[in-house]
Amino acid sequence: MKKMNNKKNNRPAEIIACLVRASKVLLISHVAPDGDTLGSALGLAAALRQRGVEVRLACADPVPAELRFLPGSEGFAARGRSDEDLIVVLDTGDLKRIGSLYSPESFAAVPVINIDHHVTNVFFGDLNWVEPRAATAELVLDLLLEWGIPLDKEIATPLLTGIITDTRGFRTSSTTAESLRAAITLMEAGASLAEISEAVFNRRSLATLRLWGMALAQAQFAEGVLWVEISREMLAQVDDPMASRGLANFLSTFAQARVAAVFRELDGVVEISLRSAPGVDVSEVALRFGGGGHPQAAGCTVEGELARVRSQVLEALFEVVRTAEEERG
Amino acid sequence: MKKMNNKKNNRPAEIIACLVRASKVLLISHVAPDGDTLGSALGLAAALRQRGVEVRLACADPVPAELRFLPGSEGFAARGRSDEDLIVVLDTGDLKRIGSLYSPESFAAVPVINIDHHVTNVFFGDLNWVEPRAATAELVLDLLLEWGIPLDKEIATPLLTGIITDTRGFRTSSTTAESLRAAITLMEAGASLAEISEAVFNRRSLATLRLWGMALAQAQFAEGVLWVEISREMLAQVDDPMASRGLANFLSTFAQARVAAVFRELDGVVEISLRSAPGVDVSEVALRFGGGGHPQAAGCTVEGELARVRSQVLEALFEVVRTAEEERG
Repeated sequence: MKKMNNKKNNRPAEIIACLVRASKVLLISHVAPDGDTLGSALGLAAALRQRGVEVRLACADPVPAELRFLPGSEGFAARGRSDEDLIVVLDTGDLKRIGSLYSPESFAAVPVINIDHHVTNVFFGDLNWVEPRAATAELVLDLLLEWGIPLDKEIATPLLTGIITDTRGFRTSSTTAESLRAAITLMEAGASLAEISEAVFNRRSLATLRLWGMALAQAQFAEGVLWVEISREMLAQVDDPMASRGLANFLSTFAQARVAAVFRELDGVVEISLRSAPGVDVSEVALRFGGGGHPQAAGCTVEGELARVRSQVLEALFEVVRTAEEERG
Repeated sequence: MKKMNNKKNNRPAEIIACLVRASKVLLISHVAPDGDTLGSALGLAAALRQRGVEVRLACADPVPAELRFLPGSEGFAARGRSDEDLIVVLDTGDLKRIGSLYSPESFAAVPVINIDHHVTNVFFGDLNWVEPRAATAELVLDLLLEWGIPLDKEIATPLLTGIITDTRGFRTSSTTAESLRAAITLMEAGASLAEISEAVFNRRSLATLRLWGMALAQAQFAEGVLWVEISREMLAQVDDPMASRGLANFLSTFAQARVAAVFRELDGVVEISLRSAPGVDVSEVALRFGGGGHPQAAGCTVEGELARVRSQVLEALFEVVRTAEEERG
C-alpha cells in the first residue's frame, strides 16, 4: 500500500538509492511545460544515461519553441508508463499537473519519485523531495553532486536553463545566492549562460512584436490592475498562436501594476494569465476559476464569452488588490 | 608632465596606495549615466567615507529616475574639481564622456585615476586600471577586496546595481562566472538582488507602456534591421520624456533583428539608439554619425529632419548587416 500525502521528505541519499536500483526510468514533466520541468528532466536523463540507465521522457504537451534548442528535447512524448521500473515526476506539485499521463494502475505498479520546489506540493510520491528552492533544477543538481555524478555540458545546459527560466534570469524574489552558486557550478561544467539567455529571452517572433504592439496600445489600468485582451481577430492577424506567451510577465514590469492580466480569447473559452507584485496572491483567484499556480504567477481557463469572463475575473482581482492594500495598512 | 595614452595598466596596489594618500576625492561618472558608472562611484564613495575620506560625486547629467533608489545618488552634482586632491573617473573610456566637467587646468593639478571596463579606453589617467570585465563595478569590488575594506550594504548595493544593469541581469555575452561570483559576494555583504532587479527592471511607467504600444504597432523590419520611430507627437501624448528608455534593448529581444534601432525626434535633432546581435558592430555606424559606444550597444544624435536622418542611418545599418552576413559566409 502506498502512503500518499505523508508530507515527509526523504533524504537525497534515499532517492539516490532508489535511482541506483532502476534499469528503465520514465521521467515526467508537467503540462504546459516550462524550462524548469523540462530542464530538470533532461539534466537527470543525461546523468542516468551516463550511468547506463535507459530513460524515456514524457510530457502531455509539446515542448514550446523557445526550449527546442535543448539537446534531447525532441525525446519528449505524450506517453504513459510501459515497461519502466521507476517513475520520476519533476517540478510538479500534484499528479493532476501531468494531465493525461497519469493512470492509477501504472503508477501503483512501480515506485514514484517526486522532486519539486512548489510549496503547494501534495507529496504524491513513494519518495518525495520537496524544497522551496528557486528552481527544481537546483534540487536535481544537488542530487547529482551528492551522487558524485561527473557533470558535463549535456547535464549542465538543461539544468541551467531550468534556473534561468524559473528565476526569469535571476530577477525573481525567490533567487538566492545558492541559485547563483548553482549557476556557476553549471557554467563551469560547460553550460553557456549567454547562449541559454539568448535562446529563452531573445528569440521573440515578429508576430509577437505586432501582437504586443496591438495589445499594449489598448492596455487598460484600474484599481492597481493592468490588463490587455487578445481577441481571436488579433491572433488571426499575426498568425502565431504562441505570440502572446510572455506578455503577462512583460506587463508585470510596469510599476503601477499590482496585478497584470492577459485575457486570451479562444474557441468558447478565455485563457487568463495572471502575475502579481509580492503581497498580492493571484493563485487564489486562479483557483476560484478552476486554475492554479504560484502566488505571483497563476492562470486559468474559463468557459464563456470574453467580455463577461473578463468582468468576472477583474472583479475578483480588484478585490484581491483591495484586500492586500488593507493588509499593508 | 603627465603621460597620456601610455596604454599601460597600473596594479591595483598602486591605485590603492594613491587612494590611501588622498583626503578629499572627486568621483566622476560619465554623461547619460547608467547603473554601472553611478554604482561604481557610489560603492567607492561609501568605502572611502568609511575610511574618513571626504568624497564628492560628480556627473554632468542628472541621475535617471530608475536609479534614484540608490542611497546617496542625490549627492551627484554637475561640478568640476574645487579643492579635491584626487580625481577618480569611473566607467569612462575617454574624458570627452564626462562632458562639461572636464577642464585641462583642474585635471593637470591633481592625480587622475581611471577605472574602466571599456576596451576602447584611451588610458587618460595618471593611474589606469582598464580590464574588459562585464562591469566596472566588478573592478571596484576587486579593488576594495584587495584593499581589505569590510563590505557593507552601503558599498554592496550600488556595486551589485552596476553589475546587474551592465549585464542586463546576467544576460549579456560579457557575463562570466566571475560576474556571478562578484554578485554572490555583494549579496552576502547585504545587497538585495531582488530589490535591485525590481527597481531597475520593473518600474516602467504607464506612459512607457502607451509609447511602446504605439511604437511597436508601427515597427518596421527590413534587411535584418528592426526599427521604430518616436515622433514629437507621440512623446507629447504620453507626457514622459524618459518613456522611450529601454526600447532599443527591448527591440533587440526579437529573433530576426540583427540590428534594433530607435529614432527619437527632438527639436531639430534625432536621437538614435542602436543594439545589435554579436557579430554586427553598430558602434562604427554610431561613430560615423558623431556618436559612439560598444559593438552591441551604441548611439548618436544627428541634426536634421527625422525622415532624412532615418534613411541615412538605415542605409549605413543595412550595409553593416550585409558585411557581417558576408563575413559569416
